[in-house]
Amino acid sequence: MTDTEARTPFSVAIAGVAGRMGRQLVAAALDEGLVVAGGTEAPGKGPFDRDIGELAGRQALGVRPVTDPVAAAANADVWIDFTRPEATLAALNSLKHTRVSGVVIGTTGMSAAEEKEVARAAEQLAIVKAGNFSVGINLLQALTRIAASRLGEGWDIEILETHHRRKVDAPSGTALMLGEAAAEGRGSGLDDLRAAPYDGPASARVPGQIGFSVRRMGDVIGEHSVSIGSDREILTLSHQALDRAVFAHGALQAAAWVKGRAPGLYGMDDVLGLSGN
Amino acid sequence: MTDTEARTPFSVAIAGVAGRMGRQLVAAALDEGLVVAGGTEAPGKGPFDRDIGELAGRQALGVRPVTDPVAAAANADVWIDFTRPEATLAALNSLKHTRVSGVVIGTTGMSAAEEKEVARAAEQLAIVKAGNFSVGINLLQALTRIAASRLGEGWDIEILETHHRRKVDAPSGTALMLGEAAAEGRGSGLDDLRAAPYDGPASARVPGQIGFSVRRMGDVIGEHSVSIGSDREILTLSHQALDRAVFAHGALQAAAWVKGRAPGLYGMDDVLGLSGN
Amino acid sequence: MTDTEARTPFSVAIAGVAGRMGRQLVAAALDEGLVVAGGTEAPGKGPFDRDIGELAGRQALGVRPVTDPVAAAANADVWIDFTRPEATLAALNSLKHTRVSGVVIGTTGMSAAEEKEVARAAEQLAIVKAGNFSVGINLLQALTRIAASRLGEGWDIEILETHHRRKVDAPSGTALMLGEAAAEGRGSGLDDLRAAPYDGPASARVPGQIGFSVRRMGDVIGEHSVSIGSDREILTLSHQALDRAVFAHGALQAAAWVKGRAPGLYGMDDVLGLSGN
Amino acid sequence: MTDTEARTPFSVAIAGVAGRMGRQLVAAALDEGLVVAGGTEAPGKGPFDRDIGELAGRQALGVRPVTDPVAAAANADVWIDFTRPEATLAALNSLKHTRVSGVVIGTTGMSAAEEKEVARAAEQLAIVKAGNFSVGINLLQALTRIAASRLGEGWDIEILETHHRRKVDAPSGTALMLGEAAAEGRGSGLDDLRAAPYDGPASARVPGQIGFSVRRMGDVIGEHSVSIGSDREILTLSHQALDRAVFAHGALQAAAWVKGRAPGLYGMDDVLGLSGN
Repeated sequence: MTDTEARTPFSVAIAGVAGRMGRQLVAAALDEGLVVAGGTEAPGKGPFDRDIGELAGRQALGVRPVTDPVAAAANADVWIDFTRPEATLAALNSLKHTRVSGVVIGTTGMSAAEEKEVARAAEQLAIVKAGNFSVGINLLQALTRIAASRLGEGWDIEILETHHRRKVDAPSGTALMLGEAAAEGRGSGLDDLRAAPYDGPASARVPGQIGFSVRRMGDVIGEHSVSIGSDREILTLSHQALDRAVFAHGALQAAAWVKGRAPGLYGMDDVLGLSGN
Repeated sequence: MTDTEARTPFSVAIAGVAGRMGRQLVAAALDEGLVVAGGTEAPGKGPFDRDIGELAGRQALGVRPVTDPVAAAANADVWIDFTRPEATLAALNSLKHTRVSGVVIGTTGMSAAEEKEVARAAEQLAIVKAGNFSVGINLLQALTRIAASRLGEGWDIEILETHHRRKVDAPSGTALMLGEAAAEGRGSGLDDLRAAPYDGPASARVPGQIGFSVRRMGDVIGEHSVSIGSDREILTLSHQALDRAVFAHGALQAAAWVKGRAPGLYGMDDVLGLSGN
Repeated sequence: MTDTEARTPFSVAIAGVAGRMGRQLVAAALDEGLVVAGGTEAPGKGPFDRDIGELAGRQALGVRPVTDPVAAAANADVWIDFTRPEATLAALNSLKHTRVSGVVIGTTGMSAAEEKEVARAAEQLAIVKAGNFSVGINLLQALTRIAASRLGEGWDIEILETHHRRKVDAPSGTALMLGEAAAEGRGSGLDDLRAAPYDGPASARVPGQIGFSVRRMGDVIGEHSVSIGSDREILTLSHQALDRAVFAHGALQAAAWVKGRAPGLYGMDDVLGLSGN
Repeated sequence: MTDTEARTPFSVAIAGVAGRMGRQLVAAALDEGLVVAGGTEAPGKGPFDRDIGELAGRQALGVRPVTDPVAAAANADVWIDFTRPEATLAALNSLKHTRVSGVVIGTTGMSAAEEKEVARAAEQLAIVKAGNFSVGINLLQALTRIAASRLGEGWDIEILETHHRRKVDAPSGTALMLGEAAAEGRGSGLDDLRAAPYDGPASARVPGQIGFSVRRMGDVIGEHSVSIGSDREILTLSHQALDRAVFAHGALQAAAWVKGRAPGLYGMDDVLGLSGN
């Protein structure tokens, strides 16, 4: 069950609540009828004199950012954290002093040692950690793995992504994640299968490789497609983001799922019931 | 393993070998390096004086159509049958007198009683029976079922198909099959969820229904797409046929899979390793 | 030159400034660096005590809605009007008492008599009047007319549109406008060429007709495509709206074009330099 | 009028009639009901003992390849030449001794001097010369030029092409031709505007440049799309080839147009009535 609509209200506390993603999380939580019980900001950053509802462009909640996770989480069921590795790990440590039992982590860039600390915390907390919280992208990744595993070497895989003109890295992290899923489906790793862009008079396709093509234009939020083609047919799996709030709402879906669950380290595959495939 | 390329050669006999599908099957089998050991045509139909390789636009094989399945299948490993119910059932009966152990059936329009006869024959023969032998379409159907089961009522399902201008029925049988897969994913049947085309000043979307839209133009072989959209993202799974021979080659993939397999009634889901999903 | 970026600032007055479209126009004008000199609301409607910048979610301008177009337009170069026929005609009458020389009208639903009044006003004012102010849609309409005029009866025309789930009419007004452009390209009218949706066992394509297919899902702002297909190739012209503000910005592009122009009645074709095609 | 269907029959002679393109031209001409009056092959190449209808997979015509253009063209209205520069120029020279008044040239790779010779021949013959004879691609090129000229620097242009896995050069010649049309629309040349593929952590879009992305998979005949996107909307013009014979049929459309026309050097723009745009 993946609907966000019919969910029992619960309360969340949000790390980095005055930042771009923090404010999107507050707005999304309020739009879904959840209670935003508290939020943190880094010491010296703030602003600590603003209401976190108003910071998010919504009604005043009578709640301001604080620096202490324990205080922020006092009345929360779930902790949501899209900040930085050290801050996230410090918060995990503090949560044992609260009633929070579920955690959603979207923080990226953790070292192996930091990942281990998260795993240790997951012995006592139910934690969902993911690189991308869009429901559709996670499903696309799972379907790509299935399709690639069923369609052998006679099928060519091409991944196309389009983003707004301001994006500077290419291909997108999500495109590479989809390429990794395709490579896994073929029992290999993307490092071995990734093709360079076709460009020039002698840029033949190498059989078995995975191609990437990239467009940058206007204000496209993000479009990804995985095409798998043989001599006789093409299967294309694609995703289009309509709203930049898609990631915040996916994190809330993870929060609803993780609330009250047994301790452990989970991914969006678990939230979406895709882990069996 | 779904490649058609690296397969051990084996021999097939083909029912209705002078008809449109029969000739496509012969051409595809020869193009894949298989042996076409024999073929049948209905008594009084023929032609019985033409070589079945030449009928298919390929080299002469020194083999002509015959009326008796036992004679046609004498040197074959697999029997392939895209004819009519009575003819297919008669052939299944005859095959016990041959060395054939695997059968591929693409015949459509069987009654419940006729389906039961096929099931009985499958106690002694390994039979793959399917409504559509395109690998990509079968995979699309499985992926549609998975996606629809993970994306709840807040997501709208729309199916679009495009075919050549000569097609008279709409939506296509394949589009309806995809709609059935989507409905199954939601624990329902298509009869309950199928929407009429949106047309007119008051044709609002009914929540939970599955929409169909249809285009007819030029010589498009067949394109199908299933889009599932929420307020924030759209997932689209689509298929494009590049070559009308796609069905013949899919039947040969089923033939390679069924050869030497234990008796039983199988579908393309089994051939493609999709039945567990 | 169609860029909105490098334009000399000028000032606009906006009719119906507290309504949905009025507020979008104010926001768009401020985002483009224009001066919003005034705005009207209907007597008894208001609110007359709010700042029109704040009503639009932008900074305060020190300007409130008034009921009198003459007062609202006192310091404006261009009058922009997306209201109702009577209100628009009354405003046109008043503008002779102001320094306004250019007008942009997006008001729809005028009778033939009302259209005539607009034409009479255009003897003294430069007026751009259009049904859709998206630059891309107007260009798509012009390109559709050209393509349809060059590709004869052997080519089938199919128009596909997708909108959010809340839209109740189908096909969209824009899809019908594109169909009209295609029909014009063939020297005919859409009334003669419009096909019913293909649906059922005997829904063959009638040669020369223009087909429409419609999807409704999620929160799609609007997508339109015109495909023209022969037995050997398909040409597809399509448009995707990324932002609901596209119409307000198109109206401002028309405002920049019409400012200081000779009296006359113009369309978006003129603004975009498409009228010669 | 661009239909190939309702055309008065006329007769053609075809250079290089036993080659791949020559045979496609013969097949297409016969399928359209034209008379194939003769054909040439290079001395020493042949085969000269085969019927040119049978070489093309059609019925015998009682006509075999010859080496002399004068003999081949004796009963022809139009000469069609997709060979090599020297051969084409030699044929043009010979045609003055025949009744042929119209010529279609698809030969590529001519030097400036050779192009001049064609121009000289066009003082006495009506010649259509083009790099791509697909009606749709030529129309796409014209529409791209129009669109790019109307949408200024605030709009990003991205060209995507997909071809079969055997194609070794990238981007395709047609994609570059479309890029050239887009650049022309902006009053510039493609050499100045062509972007390298986006690839790597710092591959930001350069404003005003034209991006190219390339896919290679399966047996895709050829797909091209030109997308022009702003912050609020995207216009996409695209083309899909359904049949490799599209170029032969386009050449025959040029032949029908050029037959009996006044001497001069024409392009597909003239044939399609696009030269005025």
